[in-house]
Amino acid sequence: MAALGTIRGPTIPQADRAATLARCRWDDVRDGDTFARMSDLTLYRDEFWISPYVFSCDVALREKGLAYDEVSVALQRAEQRTEVFASGSVTARVPALRHGDFVVAESSAIVEYLEEAFPETPRVLPTDVRERARARQVMSWIRSDDTLPIRQERSSATMFYERTDAVLSADGARAATKLLEVTTRLLAHGGEHIGARWSIADADLAFMLQRLIMNGAVVPERVRAYVERVWQRPTVQVFVQRERPAYVAY
Amino acid sequence: MAALGTIRGPTIPQADRAATLARCRWDDVRDGDTFARMSDLTLYRDEFWISPYVFSCDVALREKGLAYDEVSVALQRAEQRTEVFASGSVTARVPALRHGDFVVAESSAIVEYLEEAFPETPRVLPTDVRERARARQVMSWIRSDDTLPIRQERSSATMFYERTDAVLSADGARAATKLLEVTTRLLAHGGEHIGARWSIADADLAFMLQRLIMNGAVVPERVRAYVERVWQRPTVQVFVQRERPAYVAY
Repeated sequence: MAALGTIRGPTIPQADRAATLARCRWDDVRDGDTFARMSDLTLYRDEFWISPYVFSCDVALREKGLAYDEVSVALQRAEQRTEVFASGSVTARVPALRHGDFVVAESSAIVEYLEEAFPETPRVLPTDVRERARARQVMSWIRSDDTLPIRQERSSATMFYERTDAVLSADGARAATKLLEVTTRLLAHGGEHIGARWSIADADLAFMLQRLIMNGAVVPERVRAYVERVWQRPTVQVFVQRERPAYVAY
Repeated sequence: MAALGTIRGPTIPQADRAATLARCRWDDVRDGDTFARMSDLTLYRDEFWISPYVFSCDVALREKGLAYDEVSVALQRAEQRTEVFASGSVTARVPALRHGDFVVAESSAIVEYLEEAFPETPRVLPTDVRERARARQVMSWIRSDDTLPIRQERSSATMFYERTDAVLSADGARAATKLLEVTTRLLAHGGEHIGARWSIADADLAFMLQRLIMNGAVVPERVRAYVERVWQRPTVQVFVQRERPAYVAY
């Protein structure tokens, strides 16, 4: 399997590659020639860099030091439902990752795939079996119905575009309370992260907590410090500071 | 790590064990003595055996031939929110799995843990890296917002208790259409399962499809045959034929 420095396929000169990336919207990818010119590893992402699941994959790829191209799929124009993307990704959602002729979607599956396909790269999941289980539990829970009210009422657009001061509904408040309870239990051991070291589950959890914090929620100091610590991680900051086009709601 | 035949802790004679199980509701488990008498591996499950996530873990444990005790957590009485269960399971949901002094919740994390903690047992995820990625993609997608309308309008209670003839909402119909599209793509290779062999992702997908089929939906013959094939798997049938108490809605 290919890792940084051993990318398969034609090497694209840096200048050309930047040009390719700059215009590499989904429209272009339908052109087989553009597709062929791209590197071995491609992340299909939302246009505004606000998807929490794109965030998870983007951070994982950077933590691993893997070079990758990225293609914007305009969800606001339902490009994920085009036949070419739907059939390629199977579940018609972003993020999706292309590795050579293989495409997989769903961020947690992508993260696991990166761990397995590039075993020589830094791990983003804990190496200890039980810590890894806990990380997967957190990642699955973050993506579950339990957090849906937070995801709806504190959309990730409020993190990167415009804040909201809308009051949480009863469901939203319950979900927020549970999120803080779960976080408190996860940090009860007194350490700096969920496990002994940072993992991608910390990135996911901090992202979810930022939906509340960035919109003015007061959280326990220990939780605030945890989120800030994870947020300042360089790979996280790359995502946070992405250049984003004007937002179009969808 | 312990596997069938090497269960750690005191061996409970079969008759006593049955008696323990029979009365092993969450109320009893709060009693430390009962807890200590139980086997090394315990699955915390819903009282009515209708949780699709309990199903996934139950099937995985049986596929692996692992002996386990099971404890009913009465969701209809919100027992999952009791302090002892919430703090133990972290996310306060069933299923949860206890292995010795470690507890993990969220079915997909439990399945991955079983694969790693008992490597000598039969695999329930594909051994090929890309097939495993696809299986994880399916498992994550099945648990995602995309299937929520189906889970709400065709609750798993309709599979094991009383069918519904309620018409699907527009959202429900859209979700059902997508479920069939995704299934068709997954089976497009012409094989009998998502991958080259059965995996736990097939069980999850068939369960979701049964919500529609058992309630009278007409699906393509190929999909129907697939679901029936998975449904007849002995470990699946053990779950399907579980003795269930009278249902109490929650």
